[in-house]
Amino acid sequence: MGKKFLVLALLLNCWIYQQGIAQSVVEQWGRFEVSFKHQPAKNPFVDDNLSAVFSNGNSKVKVHGFYDGNNTYIVRFMPTKTGTWTYLTSSNIPELNGKKGKFVCKPATDNNHGPVMVRNQYHFAYADSTPYYPFGTTVYSYIHQDNEHVAVALNTLAKSPFNKLRFLIFPQWQDYTKVQTPFFQFEKSKEPLPKKDTILWDYSRFDPAFFRNMEKHIDELAEKGVEADVILFHPYDEGKWGFDKMSHKTDLFYLKYIVARLSSFRNVWWSLCNEFDHFKYKSDADWDDLIATVAKEDPYHHLCSIHNDKRMFNNTNPALTHACVQGGTYVDDFGRAVIQRDAYKKPVVYDEICYEGDIVYRWGNLSAERMVYRYWQGAIAGCYAGHGETFVGKDSVLHLVWGRELRGRSPERIRFLKSIMEETGTLEQIDHFWGMNNMAKSEHGDILIYLGTEAKTEWPFVLSRDLKLPEGTKYTAEIIDTWNMTRTPVPGIFCTTKADAKGIYDNKSRTIGLPGKPYMAILLKPTR
Amino acid sequence: MGKKFLVLALLLNCWIYQQGIAQSVVEQWGRFEVSFKHQPAKNPFVDDNLSAVFSNGNSKVKVHGFYDGNNTYIVRFMPTKTGTWTYLTSSNIPELNGKKGKFVCKPATDNNHGPVMVRNQYHFAYADSTPYYPFGTTVYSYIHQDNEHVAVALNTLAKSPFNKLRFLIFPQWQDYTKVQTPFFQFEKSKEPLPKKDTILWDYSRFDPAFFRNMEKHIDELAEKGVEADVILFHPYDEGKWGFDKMSHKTDLFYLKYIVARLSSFRNVWWSLCNEFDHFKYKSDADWDDLIATVAKEDPYHHLCSIHNDKRMFNNTNPALTHACVQGGTYVDDFGRAVIQRDAYKKPVVYDEICYEGDIVYRWGNLSAERMVYRYWQGAIAGCYAGHGETFVGKDSVLHLVWGRELRGRSPERIRFLKSIMEETGTLEQIDHFWGMNNMAKSEHGDILIYLGTEAKTEWPFVLSRDLKLPEGTKYTAEIIDTWNMTRTPVPGIFCTTKADAKGIYDNKSRTIGLPGKPYMAILLKPTR
Repeated sequence: MGKKFLVLALLLNCWIYQQGIAQSVVEQWGRFEVSFKHQPAKNPFVDDNLSAVFSNGNSKVKVHGFYDGNNTYIVRFMPTKTGTWTYLTSSNIPELNGKKGKFVCKPATDNNHGPVMVRNQYHFAYADSTPYYPFGTTVYSYIHQDNEHVAVALNTLAKSPFNKLRFLIFPQWQDYTKVQTPFFQFEKSKEPLPKKDTILWDYSRFDPAFFRNMEKHIDELAEKGVEADVILFHPYDEGKWGFDKMSHKTDLFYLKYIVARLSSFRNVWWSLCNEFDHFKYKSDADWDDLIATVAKEDPYHHLCSIHNDKRMFNNTNPALTHACVQGGTYVDDFGRAVIQRDAYKKPVVYDEICYEGDIVYRWGNLSAERMVYRYWQGAIAGCYAGHGETFVGKDSVLHLVWGRELRGRSPERIRFLKSIMEETGTLEQIDHFWGMNNMAKSEHGDILIYLGTEAKTEWPFVLSRDLKLPEGTKYTAEIIDTWNMTRTPVPGIFCTTKADAKGIYDNKSRTIGLPGKPYMAILLKPTR
Repeated sequence: MGKKFLVLALLLNCWIYQQGIAQSVVEQWGRFEVSFKHQPAKNPFVDDNLSAVFSNGNSKVKVHGFYDGNNTYIVRFMPTKTGTWTYLTSSNIPELNGKKGKFVCKPATDNNHGPVMVRNQYHFAYADSTPYYPFGTTVYSYIHQDNEHVAVALNTLAKSPFNKLRFLIFPQWQDYTKVQTPFFQFEKSKEPLPKKDTILWDYSRFDPAFFRNMEKHIDELAEKGVEADVILFHPYDEGKWGFDKMSHKTDLFYLKYIVARLSSFRNVWWSLCNEFDHFKYKSDADWDDLIATVAKEDPYHHLCSIHNDKRMFNNTNPALTHACVQGGTYVDDFGRAVIQRDAYKKPVVYDEICYEGDIVYRWGNLSAERMVYRYWQGAIAGCYAGHGETFVGKDSVLHLVWGRELRGRSPERIRFLKSIMEETGTLEQIDHFWGMNNMAKSEHGDILIYLGTEAKTEWPFVLSRDLKLPEGTKYTAEIIDTWNMTRTPVPGIFCTTKADAKGIYDNKSRTIGLPGKPYMAILLKPTR
């Protein structure tokens, strides 16, 4: 390289650094990123600040930047509408203050439908109005393994029916999970160690390598159409690293950093904590404060929830967009799942209903039949269930922890339910009355009746009065075998009577014959 | 009577009127009442005000008075502590302003334990700390019949196990209830009637005769140890009187009046509305405002709730002391009733779980067995259930409406449950896990296991891990037949193992033999 060229290159480099490196075109709900080079004077995580206001017509969005290591400061932004966006930075570093720039936001392409939001109070849709039905699974240590293994888990996920993944930010140290992680959230302290095997953290310095690695995996999930339900805190530390014992100040410092990094990722959902009630060192008021912090720092208001074990969080907190509930019992019979929906008046995702598997713990040896049954119980109540798998195998590598392979028989049946829901649209339990709470009406007017474990040979055509159907409403019917994944049309058309004190009937008193097996459902579709 | 004596009597009369007529000694949680004679200038309900501040040491309580007709203004007060109370009135009527007086409050006697309050977050006790277990029933038109019939209903109630009565302030006009009431809350309007059979009300003038009559009946209930759960609004008017369509201003005017009259009655509970979601003319915000008004006007903070049909009210409203829930399905299986408790984090009384009876409506033909089963399901979940009876008889005089006689077989079994709860103390469901949610721990350490409809011949001694029992904890056992009301001791003593992943067992693997009948329970009591 000639000397002149080198000088030119250095000058160009300086100019680029000063202007920031950024894209000129970004998709709607894609990610714009501008980075600036600057050598921090002291601790950039603590002492430096950087933010930017993005403008497009009447829209103005303020976002926080972050320090990414290597003398690099970054601002990320998710444009929520098309057109030209301009930005202006603010910083206590003079060289990064008052930087201007612009980019063009083009319409979204392919499988980019934007972030998922609440739709019709109890359900979900992407920002472009495409319905989203959560059919999630959990792989706790997804990001705490090497990239080769993440690729295996991602491939498993891509072939599964699951469109949401719950995973932990901090590493876990419990049965089946005792594998060291190559990355940590904070830098190790330079203080001398008080005793062997104890790690001390410098809670004022993040390790950006951890976050960059996680972000790569979140983007991979987005490519496969999988929402990333990131669990920001968890209590499964067992004294190993101490991330469950950080001060409230450190918790807030961490949350602000991760929200600055991740809120521009369209597929991110915030899950404040797994089994919050197992946390020894935080009160409900602490959680309220942490939830409020996420809501305040996230300009896009991604979905936000907190997950319980034995004690429910007060899910009426308005910053929680939906209830994320552990509890297999809630979806173990008719008329149960809807109770939480009625109480919280927001969507309920039963994200942990025990796991299909064979481990000794009672939460980890559900049969495939019961898992599928519980999914249907959730669906029929206008709620959603979540999957997890705990077959111990030869190597104790649980899907729940590492996500490598699915061995269970429930995922295919869950896919079958998903296909039915994609056809009917969202479901609402019609009637809360004892004996009539096994039927749902869909947003397209279909009626879905789930018969659960009853092995009936006949379903008498009786619908709930609460449907308020005009006399003479006509339906076609099909028999659904939810276990064998078959759909069998019933010949003829059913036509409703007037309601009496107990129900609505077929005007020719027809019934529907059934094969005397459990796990059957009936789907009625309006016809003329 | 001599002329001199007449003059003296008149002077005395004037002096008494000026000082007010009042008691000099009142029991704790009894009712002090001072009345003043004064001829109103205009409309005393609207134009006049009267209040008083009662003081005793550091305690100061401000209460509102009310106009009681017949040129009489009254201030009532419930002293919550013993000692000498003084009072000072305020009024826009100069003759009633600045009146002073005092009385002595002596300790409560007999069955006066004070008002019922929330105890230990999910339960109840009287103000003197005596536990109170709500075992209520409903007689909607209790006060809307002549006194002879009220006496019959009261006598029925006094012989029953029920210690709480829900009844309507406004008259009801529905099936089985179409009987004219002799009393109304408001004076009839002097305006000409627009059409025959239409009553117009002067919503600026109460009819004190209605309230005096109701108060007599509330005092009679207190004497029998029955709490009066007064339903302040209801939607069952059907265009007959229009009390469901009053303006918000009239609603507030009425609430302030009735709270001024009734808050000094120790056995009053406020039930804002029955089936609030059937109200066509009020929003949830209206209800919140009405609830806040009651809470503000009632200086004693009596228990306060609102009752639903198909849609739950947001029972997290802090002015609601407990959730009063309609819904038989909530107590129709294990692990269900507790869900609302977990959501609202306050006591839950399932005050309407369908009625034992034989009417055609599906809410009114529950078997006695199912009623008792539902009571047990409520109890085992740390909640409470409520009774109602709808046998139509020859005369269509339902107990639910008039309360004359109980024909059902559930009340005696409910009394049996009540006696067990009085022995064990409050119950808490131990475990929310599927299959382990049929057991409760009592505040005295007893364990109560309810077996529901299962007709088992054996109960394997398996307790929930969540009991966290030390190994070697010893229990005696008895078998309870909840239907036949028998209690049979099991010989020997059970002694617990260490918990494994699924439960806690007897260390000799003993089981408990059962008679193969439904509705059995097992009571374990700690022993040495």
